[in-house]
Amino acid sequence: MKPFWAGHPELSRELDEVKQTILSRASTDDVEVLEAIRQMLASGGKMLRPAFVLLSSRFGSPDRNRILNVSAAVEMLHMATLVHDDIIDGASLRRGVAALNALRGPRIAVLVGDWLFAASLSLIADFTGTENARSLSQIVARICGSEISQSADRFAVHASVRKYLRRIAGKTAALFALSFYVGAVESGCPADLSSILRRLGYCIGMGFQIIDDILDFSRSGADTGKPTGSDLSQGIFTLPVILALKKDDGNLAKALSRSPFSRRAVSRMTGIIMAKGGIDGARSMAEVYTRRAINEIERLPPVPARETLRAVTEKLLDRTY
Amino acid sequence: MKPFWAGHPELSRELDEVKQTILSRASTDDVEVLEAIRQMLASGGKMLRPAFVLLSSRFGSPDRNRILNVSAAVEMLHMATLVHDDIIDGASLRRGVAALNALRGPRIAVLVGDWLFAASLSLIADFTGTENARSLSQIVARICGSEISQSADRFAVHASVRKYLRRIAGKTAALFALSFYVGAVESGCPADLSSILRRLGYCIGMGFQIIDDILDFSRSGADTGKPTGSDLSQGIFTLPVILALKKDDGNLAKALSRSPFSRRAVSRMTGIIMAKGGIDGARSMAEVYTRRAINEIERLPPVPARETLRAVTEKLLDRTY
Repeated sequence: MKPFWAGHPELSRELDEVKQTILSRASTDDVEVLEAIRQMLASGGKMLRPAFVLLSSRFGSPDRNRILNVSAAVEMLHMATLVHDDIIDGASLRRGVAALNALRGPRIAVLVGDWLFAASLSLIADFTGTENARSLSQIVARICGSEISQSADRFAVHASVRKYLRRIAGKTAALFALSFYVGAVESGCPADLSSILRRLGYCIGMGFQIIDDILDFSRSGADTGKPTGSDLSQGIFTLPVILALKKDDGNLAKALSRSPFSRRAVSRMTGIIMAKGGIDGARSMAEVYTRRAINEIERLPPVPARETLRAVTEKLLDRTY
Repeated sequence: MKPFWAGHPELSRELDEVKQTILSRASTDDVEVLEAIRQMLASGGKMLRPAFVLLSSRFGSPDRNRILNVSAAVEMLHMATLVHDDIIDGASLRRGVAALNALRGPRIAVLVGDWLFAASLSLIADFTGTENARSLSQIVARICGSEISQSADRFAVHASVRKYLRRIAGKTAALFALSFYVGAVESGCPADLSSILRRLGYCIGMGFQIIDDILDFSRSGADTGKPTGSDLSQGIFTLPVILALKKDDGNLAKALSRSPFSRRAVSRMTGIIMAKGGIDGARSMAEVYTRRAINEIERLPPVPARETLRAVTEKLLDRTY
């Protein structure tokens, strides 16, 4: 797979600087922890959130050092949730690298996640205004709240589209939106422009997560570091499942109520979900968000960053990986 | 056991308000999570950190609402570390209550810890100045760093007193110190008075942690919710072990190198540690910090809170539970 930002050399370079900033903050006594953070950074995550901070800042007059540090903080916050998610999911692979959790046990994964989280918030306190520092702290509470609710609802067949959308808003779109917003505000963009950028982030985030949830049914572990159907087998019923249940003649609901699921059961249920139009329906909803995102992009001033955003949005919301 | 603050009805009442503040922030969808937080609050923790914020604020002109919220934030931060510690320790009991970890698995414990942590930092961003918000974020990084280092050094016989002191400073004393400092600064105390209160918190914290580590060798599980010798059996070699190793004729080092330890081995090693004066030596060091704490108290202005602090310090640093 070609690196995600290969067509954007300047942004690529800036994202490398973001990685350096993260590493320079990550000076712990513990060699293995440092090595784990280094591996996470090296293993080819897209670094979408810092990229959004950087791109959004170009609509204003960015202070380079401040924006680099804010970008680093946003990525560290995301890394913290990844490390903790691995404990939550019992996952052993993440970004193709043996997860800290598998390598050193939940003990160290909890601590590294906490440490990343705290280091992120301390960067944020150093480099953003009070309003943004507050929003960034609050967003973690929201991400956790969504994850708690997701965890509490595992294997529950009564999920609704509305609840699903609220959950992915909290889990993903809110941080995408805030990345755009913080990049804009911290570079002195006026309020209306910052709002457009925030809405853009929200729409990209919603579309991105729906597509991610669709891809969980089809992509192979080699690309994503997650086995196919992993959400379903963990009892996390995403949009395709919810939409398929609406046209269900009882077979899917019955199968879903018989947890834990064998591999064969996951495969059979995936067949039903596809046959009942769950994947197609979810893809249509993702397209709604893509169109809304493109509309927001049209409203942006015609600086070069706008075209980068357009290209990235289309690439993200039309991906198969 | 009599409630810790029984002799201080006004403070007791204020601490109840702190609990109410925490509960009112903890409005998650998840009934079990809310219940778990309620149980943690109900199960008789001493709530030292919020008490220190409250007591310290009385040396200035506290804004009641602000100080209540800051106190709640400090306790939530501590609760977050407790919940995550349970995962780290694999503990199944905490404050005598079945720990979240045992009840709902690491999945939920990770999330609740993250949520408490985030909710705490968002309260802090709302109710403290930038400098204190920054310090409180940084302290979490420091607590995690100390825990990571403690975790990395498990079963290592080469521990030094110096390293031990640095570790408990990060793990415990720094947050004690900051609780005092934040209470003072946010109530408008002058810089020199705030510094005395911060040092007082540091000394109490160091003494408190040393005594905690001593008590781990003697107290029963009924009082503390932890089994006797739990640090030792987990390979965490605290001050009594380090001091005993200095007078060791080889038997202790040999026994310590044979992990994992059986119950009998823990009991035999505890005997050696006592015989080699490890406990007595540690108690002397705790007394040094107690004396330094009392000295700082002498330098405080003679408001009623000073006598409360004296009583609490003596009680904490002379406890057997």
